[in-house]
Amino acid sequence: MSATRRVAVVAGGLSSFGVRSATWSELVQEAGHAAFGNIRNFSSKDVDSLFVGAAQPERLAFQSHVAPLAAELLGFEPWKILQRTELACASGQSAIRSAYAAISAGLSDVAAVVGVEKMNLPSMAEANTSMANVLDRAWDGVHGATAPPFFAMCAQRHMLEYGTTAEQMAMVSEKNHRFANTNPSAQFYSKQFSRDKLLKLPMVAPPLRLGDCSSMTDGAAGVLLVAEELARKYTDTPVWIRGTGQHSSFHNLSGAGSLSTWPGLKAAAQEAFRSAKLAPQDLDLAEVHDCFTISEIIEYEEIGFCAKGEGGTFVQEGQSDLGGKVVVNPRGGLLGCGHPLGATGVAQAVEVFQQLQGSAPPARQVPGAELALVHNLSGSANVHSLMIYGREN
Amino acid sequence: MSATRRVAVVAGGLSSFGVRSATWSELVQEAGHAAFGNIRNFSSKDVDSLFVGAAQPERLAFQSHVAPLAAELLGFEPWKILQRTELACASGQSAIRSAYAAISAGLSDVAAVVGVEKMNLPSMAEANTSMANVLDRAWDGVHGATAPPFFAMCAQRHMLEYGTTAEQMAMVSEKNHRFANTNPSAQFYSKQFSRDKLLKLPMVAPPLRLGDCSSMTDGAAGVLLVAEELARKYTDTPVWIRGTGQHSSFHNLSGAGSLSTWPGLKAAAQEAFRSAKLAPQDLDLAEVHDCFTISEIIEYEEIGFCAKGEGGTFVQEGQSDLGGKVVVNPRGGLLGCGHPLGATGVAQAVEVFQQLQGSAPPARQVPGAELALVHNLSGSANVHSLMIYGREN
Repeated sequence: MSATRRVAVVAGGLSSFGVRSATWSELVQEAGHAAFGNIRNFSSKDVDSLFVGAAQPERLAFQSHVAPLAAELLGFEPWKILQRTELACASGQSAIRSAYAAISAGLSDVAAVVGVEKMNLPSMAEANTSMANVLDRAWDGVHGATAPPFFAMCAQRHMLEYGTTAEQMAMVSEKNHRFANTNPSAQFYSKQFSRDKLLKLPMVAPPLRLGDCSSMTDGAAGVLLVAEELARKYTDTPVWIRGTGQHSSFHNLSGAGSLSTWPGLKAAAQEAFRSAKLAPQDLDLAEVHDCFTISEIIEYEEIGFCAKGEGGTFVQEGQSDLGGKVVVNPRGGLLGCGHPLGATGVAQAVEVFQQLQGSAPPARQVPGAELALVHNLSGSANVHSLMIYGREN
Repeated sequence: MSATRRVAVVAGGLSSFGVRSATWSELVQEAGHAAFGNIRNFSSKDVDSLFVGAAQPERLAFQSHVAPLAAELLGFEPWKILQRTELACASGQSAIRSAYAAISAGLSDVAAVVGVEKMNLPSMAEANTSMANVLDRAWDGVHGATAPPFFAMCAQRHMLEYGTTAEQMAMVSEKNHRFANTNPSAQFYSKQFSRDKLLKLPMVAPPLRLGDCSSMTDGAAGVLLVAEELARKYTDTPVWIRGTGQHSSFHNLSGAGSLSTWPGLKAAAQEAFRSAKLAPQDLDLAEVHDCFTISEIIEYEEIGFCAKGEGGTFVQEGQSDLGGKVVVNPRGGLLGCGHPLGATGVAQAVEVFQQLQGSAPPARQVPGAELALVHNLSGSANVHSLMIYGREN
């Protein structure tokens, strides 16, 4: 049985991403204004449900029970569903998936989704320490297994098995930072990163240098999802959720069968394409989870944009750039935009919404884009979450 | 449009509740064994989705990204949906509601739900401090507005307006502790609390004494939800979700229009009854959120078991006890069982599941129970979440 009622994205917007002086609450309000402040025929009273994606407000903003707080900040009084979802780096997409399920089921008609994270604190010790609890803290976190060393191991293994090079990884970063220079909301909007410069940045965890890693970022984003019969009330150009896929295969690092191959992503992508009745080559663009450059390269392969082991060549040939087979991360990716955990998945959806409406800035608009994918991973690439969106057809 | 596919509860179980030496992970496994360890025709491979309800593992167990951790602990590899939901004291029910939406929408067929909280730490300072971030910490938490003073104010106002007495509040506690003595999983299973004893316990926040307050508890619980066409594979006596309601009306305490009247609960209850096509008088039992004795009294009124202001009389007359109009909190409530935040809503569902199957212990089985309600509030009673369950008919 497939979902029974079509769900449309009818609006989206986001805060500026970066090292912000704004509080958690101010980020929510800034994104709320951008996402919900100028929708045709829209009243805040229309919103029957609110889904908040947030990874660690308890530690990073010393605030829990954040869903009703966000509702109050946004002026919503949800009378159908209110909840916060957490799935570490995929928390934002998790919120969108919950809204999608609720509307599909007929349990909500108009659902606001907000993703948010405030990660830069007066002292960064708390923020950095908190990243060690994403993996099993008793078995992995305690040994220092945070994201950089894990993805560094993935890169080492991918280089060994497939000949992937540091230069190819730098090409991912160069492309995404170039795209970020078309995006005033991006953390690295005004920064230039040539490949030569990237290859000289400090080493974080070999072979990953600073420019191979996404950053600790403050930001928020929002989208409005509605049932199909309401879509044209709010916009002439709704964007539709076409399919989803998700897979979880292990948590403790000892359960990862391979570092260079991510079977959970392959399975999740196949389910997403199956449910959307589409194939990888049908997509015009993809927003994928480039938390590190090696991630994007492995994602090309597991999603099916190229054969296994050919991800490095794929970026080198420009196949993931404008004019290539599929434009990957046109908003600038996590590398260029920064990675406020709960906000990322929602910000990717905002980009896809604008791209499929044809309203992205000309410097990054994918001409005639009709179909797009959003991918998030969480933890040690043990959970993969995907959604496929399509414009009106 | 109402939900399109019926959803059944086919199994449930829980850990022992109390001050436990078990870790967060061990609580999940203990509940998992009880809930999923002995289901007819069941394989862990059947579970396509896992929903984890947890309020503050980041602070209380220094662990985030808990959904895949729980999946690994339980031996599940969800390939459809995996997420953790947070709604403070209602986190457990929030997870059930998410599973319900997913199955209704056709996005999942077999969904495991686990609620869990580890609250007793070697030093309780962290746990107690963390309770101050449930309300808006910048406006309310910082002034000491945690649960006891808030509900004490509700009690003061209710006493002033309606003549409710400390003795009537003690009657709620006496009833729920008596029920807890039928429940070996309850934190206060072997403790006796007469009304006289309750009225002499230390004052926490006037007029609330120690016996008027639920406790900091460690525990976990699980249920298995499946699509209607699979229900009879796993049990001959499925219990059905008949309706839901939820309402959020404010967050900052300054937005609470009244302390003795909870309009959000009234609205949420009306929606739950409307969606289930039932009325309060149809129910045989109700598991309601007695975080404090005054809560249960106000809940009688707002849910509609009695008129406004008559909650004290309702318990005094035995109307919420066995033989009364509706049996309230037969498992022992939060007062008798303890209140491990994320576990509570799921443990209530386990009780309702057993009651509607007719398999609760004789000392608390409601004879011929056919319809039941579960209610959770969160924060400063600003969010109310309800579900109505019914046995096969």
